[in-house]
Amino acid sequence: MKRIAIDMDDTIADFTSKHLRVYNEVFNESLTVEDLNGKKLWHARPHKAKEILDLLADPEFFRDLEVIEGSQEIIALLNEQYEVYIATAAMDIPHSFSAKYEWLRENFPFLSEQRFVFCGNKTIVNADYLIDDSPRHFVRFPGQGILFTAHHNLDQTGYPRFNSWEEAKEYFF
Amino acid sequence: MKRIAIDMDDTIADFTSKHLRVYNEVFNESLTVEDLNGKKLWHARPHKAKEILDLLADPEFFRDLEVIEGSQEIIALLNEQYEVYIATAAMDIPHSFSAKYEWLRENFPFLSEQRFVFCGNKTIVNADYLIDDSPRHFVRFPGQGILFTAHHNLDQTGYPRFNSWEEAKEYFF
Repeated sequence: MKRIAIDMDDTIADFTSKHLRVYNEVFNESLTVEDLNGKKLWHARPHKAKEILDLLADPEFFRDLEVIEGSQEIIALLNEQYEVYIATAAMDIPHSFSAKYEWLRENFPFLSEQRFVFCGNKTIVNADYLIDDSPRHFVRFPGQGILFTAHHNLDQTGYPRFNSWEEAKEYFF
Repeated sequence: MKRIAIDMDDTIADFTSKHLRVYNEVFNESLTVEDLNGKKLWHARPHKAKEILDLLADPEFFRDLEVIEGSQEIIALLNEQYEVYIATAAMDIPHSFSAKYEWLRENFPFLSEQRFVFCGNKTIVNADYLIDDSPRHFVRFPGQGILFTAHHNLDQTGYPRFNSWEEAKEYFF
């Protein structure tokens, strides 16, 4: 049975929308994803990069992210014919561990927690496919990297791309 | 550069000694590792298995485990000529994430947190070697499993074995 590893933030969990919302509340702005011009928030506002990253230090930040449209239904289907693992670069924000775990248990209850991988460098992940919004994880990944479209990766080429979870269904079935 | 994945509990962190000590305090006994007859504590006292596993629910349980003799020095040497990753089955005890992370940062400060993997099933770990006290993790591991001797695995055969970290040094250099 082939194995698919799937990232969390901006792949199944809508990280950017919450980060923007909290940023706007704290700094009294009304930035939208279009205003980011394809950059991550901390690159779009470099003079506030530290404060922007500090917003993630709240241990509950990752607990209530919205689920990316279609991910639950399609991953439930994939899970019947593939070994689905969730692989998230959680070591960048170690206080997020519990919130990420609880989020996965709540929103993807059909996945065993034995299939969760909280890691740093994803070259350690032994899978046939990795679906991720960050192409940096594909560089030494031994399988096939597939980019999940996010505002910050629209210019990336060189990898297959899913613009939606519907496209993942078409690719794997 | 070849990659070595290394388990935590009873491989670099002395889990069993603390579990026995807390058990003895709570149940007013004086069990030693010899009394376990090669079994894990919850198998040696099956009528108290639930209470024994509940001792691990303390989020700080894993924070102050003793370091297994020689592991720091030898892993520091290995880290110069191999890519060393730490791979722990943390999903069995999700409340242990933060304590395990902090323990690693304190006791193995020379390892990048990008090399930490908190997982369930270790078949997801892409490495050339896995040093672990639990042979169950070797079953579908794609590389070479190497058993680290613990009281509960003395009867296991079929894998190379390290009785100490000194033996790991001899094997890899």
